[in-house]
Amino acid sequence: AAAAGAQAQSGSVQVFGLLDASVQMLKASGTERRYFLNSDGNTSSRFGVRGTEDLGGGLKAGFWLESAVTVDDGTSGATSTNNKDSVSGGLTWGRRATLQLSGPWGELRLGRDYVPSFGNLTTSMHPFGTNGVGSSGLMFYPVPAGGTTARTQVRASNSIGYFLPAGLGGLYGHAMVALGEQGPGATRKDGQLQGVRIGWRNDGFNASAAVSKTRYATGNYTQSNVGASYKWGPARLMALWGENKIGVTKTTATMVGTQWEVSAQGEVRFAYTQLKARNVASDATHIALGYVHDLSKRTALYGNVARIDNKAAGVRFNVGLATTLPGGNSGGVEAGVRHSF
Amino acid sequence: AAAAGAQAQSGSVQVFGLLDASVQMLKASGTERRYFLNSDGNTSSRFGVRGTEDLGGGLKAGFWLESAVTVDDGTSGATSTNNKDSVSGGLTWGRRATLQLSGPWGELRLGRDYVPSFGNLTTSMHPFGTNGVGSSGLMFYPVPAGGTTARTQVRASNSIGYFLPAGLGGLYGHAMVALGEQGPGATRKDGQLQGVRIGWRNDGFNASAAVSKTRYATGNYTQSNVGASYKWGPARLMALWGENKIGVTKTTATMVGTQWEVSAQGEVRFAYTQLKARNVASDATHIALGYVHDLSKRTALYGNVARIDNKAAGVRFNVGLATTLPGGNSGGVEAGVRHSF
Amino acid sequence: AAAAGAQAQSGSVQVFGLLDASVQMLKASGTERRYFLNSDGNTSSRFGVRGTEDLGGGLKAGFWLESAVTVDDGTSGATSTNNKDSVSGGLTWGRRATLQLSGPWGELRLGRDYVPSFGNLTTSMHPFGTNGVGSSGLMFYPVPAGGTTARTQVRASNSIGYFLPAGLGGLYGHAMVALGEQGPGATRKDGQLQGVRIGWRNDGFNASAAVSKTRYATGNYTQSNVGASYKWGPARLMALWGENKIGVTKTTATMVGTQWEVSAQGEVRFAYTQLKARNVASDATHIALGYVHDLSKRTALYGNVARIDNKAAGVRFNVGLATTLPGGNSGGVEAGVRHSF
Repeated sequence: AAAAGAQAQSGSVQVFGLLDASVQMLKASGTERRYFLNSDGNTSSRFGVRGTEDLGGGLKAGFWLESAVTVDDGTSGATSTNNKDSVSGGLTWGRRATLQLSGPWGELRLGRDYVPSFGNLTTSMHPFGTNGVGSSGLMFYPVPAGGTTARTQVRASNSIGYFLPAGLGGLYGHAMVALGEQGPGATRKDGQLQGVRIGWRNDGFNASAAVSKTRYATGNYTQSNVGASYKWGPARLMALWGENKIGVTKTTATMVGTQWEVSAQGEVRFAYTQLKARNVASDATHIALGYVHDLSKRTALYGNVARIDNKAAGVRFNVGLATTLPGGNSGGVEAGVRHSF
Repeated sequence: AAAAGAQAQSGSVQVFGLLDASVQMLKASGTERRYFLNSDGNTSSRFGVRGTEDLGGGLKAGFWLESAVTVDDGTSGATSTNNKDSVSGGLTWGRRATLQLSGPWGELRLGRDYVPSFGNLTTSMHPFGTNGVGSSGLMFYPVPAGGTTARTQVRASNSIGYFLPAGLGGLYGHAMVALGEQGPGATRKDGQLQGVRIGWRNDGFNASAAVSKTRYATGNYTQSNVGASYKWGPARLMALWGENKIGVTKTTATMVGTQWEVSAQGEVRFAYTQLKARNVASDATHIALGYVHDLSKRTALYGNVARIDNKAAGVRFNVGLATTLPGGNSGGVEAGVRHSF
Repeated sequence: AAAAGAQAQSGSVQVFGLLDASVQMLKASGTERRYFLNSDGNTSSRFGVRGTEDLGGGLKAGFWLESAVTVDDGTSGATSTNNKDSVSGGLTWGRRATLQLSGPWGELRLGRDYVPSFGNLTTSMHPFGTNGVGSSGLMFYPVPAGGTTARTQVRASNSIGYFLPAGLGGLYGHAMVALGEQGPGATRKDGQLQGVRIGWRNDGFNASAAVSKTRYATGNYTQSNVGASYKWGPARLMALWGENKIGVTKTTATMVGTQWEVSAQGEVRFAYTQLKARNVASDATHIALGYVHDLSKRTALYGNVARIDNKAAGVRFNVGLATTLPGGNSGGVEAGVRHSF
């Protein structure tokens, strides 16, 4: 085995990754308790290779190849070649596969990458980001409707992205066009995405608004959201509003929460979310409490507990195990360890 | 290309692997000779990334991602998400995907890993380990029966493993629970494994016993074995007993063999195995002779020749090409090269 | 993340790769314009790990694992286990998976590798190599016929290759046998390839002839070609003749072209190809013009424009989008960036 030395170098290639494994218990109204060895309760597991090259004159070239890893069974994640159908099977660089050129004018990024509106669902605007039983995705991802299962609430393939440069006094921005690459005819723009995110941050404050729209023959999909966070002593207070529209259906979610530093190593996380549904599913609420304990910069232990309550006749929303009872709930507990390299 | 420096470092990431390619001729009663370019005649080919981090106070975090590699065509191996069904397609970290925490109290390991009873089928207790025409797997792996094709004779997914620490005077041990993660109902424990291995070794002697049990709706699977090896001058004498039960079927194999150092670089390997079958297949014997010649610590040439004789009406057992004649035999010869990195 | 240091080391493992992304417009007779984010307009994208070990006495061991990467969606490429069927799904080391031993006598290479006759289709004998709208593959790859879709015009699995050593006064050579590894009976040699390439080069001149033959039950496939290049001031003049036979069908192509250094960083590429078809498809011509601008040794910008004209009733040949009109044409433009690591 050859060791990849730990020093950072200009022009170097980095092998990087993160693994997160937890023991999870789930229970929903009308079901029995189930136990899982689970990945990604705190942060998404990944394996990748990336690097940059300084071309002189402020210009840089870079690349990024990143694959999902399911630590419990060694499988990887799916991708989509047209932002419409899901393609899985073995390792793909489905988390990110990009080639970028950057300069004083910003960064041009080509390939598979996060869509602009995903930026507000991460730990910068939601205490739990998109992981575990407290995941923002449970309320802020779209509900499939009318034959449309959106593939672009997180990433898009065939994308051309532009990022504003640093040094604009806290202003940041991201615009993206991604092609569906369909054949001619009525569905020729199937899977085509356009999105933009604009935000501003300083030492303690961060706010951002974004919208991404994907054309689908079975119903266009629009993801909009606005997030804000404010560091108030040991607590980072967070608020997030998001809306997902597919055709005539709509879900709108509002979250308030915090990441609270309770010690040099420990952080408590809390989030409460209300979801309103129109023409699809029913209203629901999501409450989540978590704790992350750093063993080092690279390794942490964590625990999460959360519950989703479906309203009226709803059975749709859950933390991993769907209820079988109208208006039923779904809850889960997990304890795990996260390690990055 | 960026070189991964060859020095070992605390806290580093290692890119590692091994490739093994051989030319193989197989022949069975009733068939013609066939030729193959083959992988893994001496050792299993692999590619992986692994590393550890020292957390202080004796505590360490680590990870291991390892994929099978078929060097003749560049494909990888399968894994199983539920220890019941096989999942293939492209590269998976199906050989090992684990996250571990260790301390003076031992090691906790989460993810996809070897089951405890596999430890006795490796080169520590069988001259050929599980590779090539002399492979222990030919007689010591289970025979599918009653709808059950066991997936856990080597590895299990969704596993929680515990290893005894070093420094117990030669005592070593491994316990594992692995979940099948099935839905509710009668088959809810389908694919769930429990196993334990306990052994003792000193400079010249090594002995170990292990048992792993997997629940399957189509018939539970139990793998039990006891192995011992003793270094007697240039020869390591080895004996292995193993039993595989699936429902009411059973195969029991007994092996005697040796790894004999005939020069500073050369090792002769020999193994003779008798198998008794009940309610499935027929009795059989397996005889194998091999030679491994080290070119360096990382590279070796090798050759193996082996033959399996099926008894009575048996046609089941073979070294890669099944006989079509009742009581027929199956033989093979291979010469190859192995290289690790 | 652990950095893989950029210094080259004897005995080291190298993580290497190349990404190439472009924006492409295609148009064919009877179709509308279509736009794509595309990979590989200039050079084929790849990710790999490779290394060598010095065994002393001139003997070396080495390995090479290389996978295709589609940078627009993170998928990988297919391979073939028997040189007959295509196997895809996730990352495979389908570009190259070899284990090699080399010495003063040459190099022995085992695994999946380029066939000898592919050597003449690369940028050494064709201005565009096998990439982009100017790709040699558009005219020099076989046309499927009579149930045979050749899998060996580029690479073969299960191959045993031999390369002449350096230091033979410019003479070079490559011979290969690759097995199809089929079962007994009439189709037992299905997928078996034999090939040889022999050439000579000095500072300015390079010429080579090659032939590879693959047996298929549905019609044997023979690929033959002769290439030459000559450095004449700033221009490398190139000529290539190639023939693909499948059963009674045949396509023969003749190309003249150049790679012309117009500045220290810029190179213009031009190629004109005539194809004659017998018993399959129709005659066609292919004209391509390109420009490559080096930003560094590792990064380049490029642009290509090309057009294929089908003759008579032909609709078969195209640069990515097939014409729907008899005797129609197919054209494309692309601009991209390439970055290797």
